[in-house]
Amino acid sequence: MTTSFCQACSREWPRSDHFLADCGHTRAYLHEDQFFPGWTVLVLKRHATELFYLSIEERAGMIEEVARMAEVLAREYRTIKINYEVLGNQVPHIHWHVIPRPKDDPAPLDPVWTVVHTPRRLEDDELAEVVARLRIQVRRS
Amino acid sequence: MTTSFCQACSREWPRSDHFLADCGHTRAYLHEDQFFPGWTVLVLKRHATELFYLSIEERAGMIEEVARMAEVLAREYRTIKINYEVLGNQVPHIHWHVIPRPKDDPAPLDPVWTVVHTPRRLEDDELAEVVARLRIQVRRS
Repeated sequence: MTTSFCQACSREWPRSDHFLADCGHTRAYLHEDQFFPGWTVLVLKRHATELFYLSIEERAGMIEEVARMAEVLAREYRTIKINYEVLGNQVPHIHWHVIPRPKDDPAPLDPVWTVVHTPRRLEDDELAEVVARLRIQVRRS
Repeated sequence: MTTSFCQACSREWPRSDHFLADCGHTRAYLHEDQFFPGWTVLVLKRHATELFYLSIEERAGMIEEVARMAEVLAREYRTIKINYEVLGNQVPHIHWHVIPRPKDDPAPLDPVWTVVHTPRRLEDDELAEVVARLRIQVRRS
């Protein structure tokens, strides 16, 4: 689809220590900024920039993976809402932001992008703990 | 799923004069703010708040409708990217924002929500023209 460098194809992004699960068509990673706890990114394994470049089977399979991860996160983080977003403005390789919005959300009516905050990067210990816990929940789902 | 009032179920929102197409599982409407030209919303016909409350068939059908509309908009507006978003923070009834990002986008790296702007509401004549044009393109797709 493109000959230019792709951070997702090169596996430079997301960081491998944030890896959660191989979901089939996608790989799931914990988002580096955990200001919204549980924010997860599902990255399509192959390079494609738009939903309409995929096959019917890929779209159907991918949306199942997104829904399954959302259900895991909703249960684990006791959310009031999940946000689902495929943007690709910065990394034009299909990836889904699956964002739990918690009961004590600082701006429950707004998209996360307008919530001004200092990114919350987990320390190594906490990252390993969260990743291990979510991996178990994904396997059980 | 809920007994509380839902703007989408009551058909108060989106506005009927912005209606584009019955896509099957969803109805498509031109978004009221056309600052990003072609911004379209696909509203699930039945009430559900999260993707994981739908059946496999509903998810598969819905993502086909989203992809088809995105392809129409990409062709019609000659975009560099499409954004796809299911938020529901304000109207917790599944609806997809399908947002064409044009070549002359004022902030191509950013989500639309952080782009400060005066909402662009089309005058009746222009609204009718855009709706008519998109309806033809959707039928041809």
